Amino acid sequence: MAQDKATRRPNAATPKGFRDYFGADVTDRKAMLDAIAEVYHRYGFDPLETSAVETVEALGKFLPDVDRPNDGVFAWQEDGKDWLALRYDLTAPLARVAAQYRGDLPSPYRRYAMGPVWRNEKPGPGRFRQFYQCDADTVGSASVAADAEICAMLADCLEAVGIERGDYVVKIGNRKVLNGVMEAAGVLDPADPAKWAEERGIVLRAIDKMDRLGEAGVLALLGAGRRDDSGDFTKGAGLGNAQAQVIIGFMAAKGADTAATLVRLEGLIGGSALGSEGVVELETMAALLAATGYGADRIEFDPAIVRGLGYYTGPVFEAELTFEVLDDKGRPQRFGSVAGGGRYDDLVMRFTGQRVPGTGVSIGVDRLLAALRAKGRIGQAAAGPVVVTVMDRDRMADYMAMVGDLRRAGVRAEPYLGNPKNFGNQLKYADQRRSPIAVIQGGDEAAAGMVILKDLILGARIAEGASLEEWKNRPAQRSVPLTDLVAEVRRMLAGE
Amino acid sequence: MAQDKATRRPNAATPKGFRDYFGADVTDRKAMLDAIAEVYHRYGFDPLETSAVETVEALGKFLPDVDRPNDGVFAWQEDGKDWLALRYDLTAPLARVAAQYRGDLPSPYRRYAMGPVWRNEKPGPGRFRQFYQCDADTVGSASVAADAEICAMLADCLEAVGIERGDYVVKIGNRKVLNGVMEAAGVLDPADPAKWAEERGIVLRAIDKMDRLGEAGVLALLGAGRRDDSGDFTKGAGLGNAQAQVIIGFMAAKGADTAATLVRLEGLIGGSALGSEGVVELETMAALLAATGYGADRIEFDPAIVRGLGYYTGPVFEAELTFEVLDDKGRPQRFGSVAGGGRYDDLVMRFTGQRVPGTGVSIGVDRLLAALRAKGRIGQAAAGPVVVTVMDRDRMADYMAMVGDLRRAGVRAEPYLGNPKNFGNQLKYADQRRSPIAVIQGGDEAAAGMVILKDLILGARIAEGASLEEWKNRPAQRSVPLTDLVAEVRRMLAGE
Repeated sequence: MAQDKATRRPNAATPKGFRDYFGADVTDRKAMLDAIAEVYHRYGFDPLETSAVETVEALGKFLPDVDRPNDGVFAWQEDGKDWLALRYDLTAPLARVAAQYRGDLPSPYRRYAMGPVWRNEKPGPGRFRQFYQCDADTVGSASVAADAEICAMLADCLEAVGIERGDYVVKIGNRKVLNGVMEAAGVLDPADPAKWAEERGIVLRAIDKMDRLGEAGVLALLGAGRRDDSGDFTKGAGLGNAQAQVIIGFMAAKGADTAATLVRLEGLIGGSALGSEGVVELETMAALLAATGYGADRIEFDPAIVRGLGYYTGPVFEAELTFEVLDDKGRPQRFGSVAGGGRYDDLVMRFTGQRVPGTGVSIGVDRLLAALRAKGRIGQAAAGPVVVTVMDRDRMADYMAMVGDLRRAGVRAEPYLGNPKNFGNQLKYADQRRSPIAVIQGGDEAAAGMVILKDLILGARIAEGASLEEWKNRPAQRSVPLTDLVAEVRRMLAGE
Repeated sequence: MAQDKATRRPNAATPKGFRDYFGADVTDRKAMLDAIAEVYHRYGFDPLETSAVETVEALGKFLPDVDRPNDGVFAWQEDGKDWLALRYDLTAPLARVAAQYRGDLPSPYRRYAMGPVWRNEKPGPGRFRQFYQCDADTVGSASVAADAEICAMLADCLEAVGIERGDYVVKIGNRKVLNGVMEAAGVLDPADPAKWAEERGIVLRAIDKMDRLGEAGVLALLGAGRRDDSGDFTKGAGLGNAQAQVIIGFMAAKGADTAATLVRLEGLIGGSALGSEGVVELETMAALLAATGYGADRIEFDPAIVRGLGYYTGPVFEAELTFEVLDDKGRPQRFGSVAGGGRYDDLVMRFTGQRVPGTGVSIGVDRLLAALRAKGRIGQAAAGPVVVTVMDRDRMADYMAMVGDLRRAGVRAEPYLGNPKNFGNQLKYADQRRSPIAVIQGGDEAAAGMVILKDLILGARIAEGASLEEWKNRPAQRSVPLTDLVAEVRRMLAGE
């Protein structure tokens, strides 16, 4: 048939940077989010689901390292009215909610939220423009007990989804300590907080990149700037060498234990009152976590943890997976960060003018899923349905009745609904669906009141590595009375 | 403090037509979707989650009754490139997926999908621009067994979420029968399918509005047109009175039982081959459903079911809740439609040029939730956390340790993290959170190794209607050794 050239067909493609999730990719993520929600609930957090769309002004501009127009968000204008945008994280909507409903919400307000967020970034390999976040925050508590609790909860979440103790560590830093150190280095003027703001932003993003760039790269960013392999130049903070060395010393201040780390930090902050406040916060968090049973096997205090986002004001934290996976070139590599967060005391103030302290954590759902796959904790495809094949299309009602009986008994089952002419296609379909059993009833069987159950588990198990020996006594198919269909299918599914 | 007038504060508001969901609104919906997913899974459907964003050309234009620019979608242009848009339903993305992955997907492809969709409609009371859909579709099956199966599944879903048999009915119609009747009435020319297309669209939207407009309103829309109470005029199909009467007769063709309905339809379609095909499809569906155990107590054949969307080509169905609720003015009213769907054979062809038959259903999540609330099936607020109060802020570590013990035992618990100065505020907070128990330990109790457990369940139960009498022997608070904290809290939560 000649194609009508006048009608251009639309391209069947996911937009660039977006993707589709099939089968186990959906259910694995759901199972993980369910396990995390259970922990969040146990810790006293309540669910909140805000709309995906916000006004641009409510969202604010808190995305770091933006390389796109519209500050990295997908935005559009309502007919001559507000600019709207897709949320880029779950924290900005929380700040809006905390302000909008402040008369009705309990204070402190503990909420968790899970869902997709969108970033208008350049699409690239492994870089997606829609991804899931899974957050918990406490708004309205100035106490570092709130931060400590969230760190403990983060540890519990990782264990709840299948990351064993010893395979992860929750690292805690504090922005006030960093600011104290910058005060000592002359990158922060306590009398004029706005002065040096840009340089401090560069400093903290540089520190946040230590893992990726190493000390030389970070030093370059602290100084004049850095040219990467592609030739792109990133402007530096313009610190002198002595100043830069104080920052590098700060990052290396982690001692053998928390007490040793805190002593070193005391030394680095000099006389900074802000820095001293930060050290006390770290001490308090350490004591609270120890009292709750979260010790050095799960929690570590590490000054190098600063987080890239500009809005943090106190404790910051990050969960790192410590086991190794192989990188693209087969070299072992630590899996790295899967969650992070911290205290932000000014986000709600944007709306209300009143300071509302908040703290929270965001779990990177996709990275954590990848980690669980790498550990072999998930990734088993779900069992396919029992497929009732169609030998005789005029007896569809009989086949549907069999399917109905199986489903009522709780067995996942379906009739073959493609063109039944080629029976081989029916079995191929059952294979592709990972069906455990094909049910077959031709005219002879029907007349005799029998059905044939073809065992497709056998083939699948052998494909998965079971030896033929183990299975040699298992019949490839059984002929059973129709009245025994459900019972016999159940027996086979139970491995009998 | 004088406000800095130079900085305009952003408005803390959900964009018009959008809303936020708190607490039980989130968990009730999740529980409902989980129950539906379990049924979809048992029927052999696999999950698919497409991205929220599609190219405008892939989405196509299938929204009926559009009163907004961009055909009712939220759309924006990538820097000089594609137009992107938020999906307005889950069927258009499925058609795109079925075309894009056609080499890899099993055929027939059975998938379910749940998630928000967005419509750029005029916001209004009860009219939201983001809402959930929950769909299941079979793509690649021309058999009406696929349609029948989906109707049975829809019945099972309603029962799974708590709508009892007798409180709902799945109604089935068929577009081919309607087209046959329109052929008989002269509104469809089998030799020229494009002719009359607009009129047919008006006819089916008019039929779909019978519930709302009554026979006179529908007759007006079939004829010259209709002016509504606000003075707005809707163009009619321009049928003559005899033609219109055939359509009205068709809508009233439902007989005492399926057999009677089919006989009447045979009469109305005259010699139309298409209409005859539709009647045979209805007959076949009735037989298949009866064989599977779905009879007149759950399934009804009703010609008046036509669905408003233009793309249906065969069987169409709708689930209606038959129990009464009170409307705004206190008058009893049927709850009405909560799900609908049908066969669409041309959606994938847009992309591939090849006809791929499909059929599916979409459950209106928000309406179904509202129905369950009206029936009192959901809406119990979740139990709040046990709140460990803070009598002495220097002993925060002790309180956190108690909370840690409770949580490890699986008890939902939290420390009070607000300013602890005013103890009354702590109890008010516990009340607002629907906390069952407040744990209290002042200096005296601490010295004695005791804690006080204040029973907040009592007050809540009485508020819910229990008599004081039932509870008079329950102590308002108990003093127990700290070592018994977990055990005693569990006893209290168990109602002992």
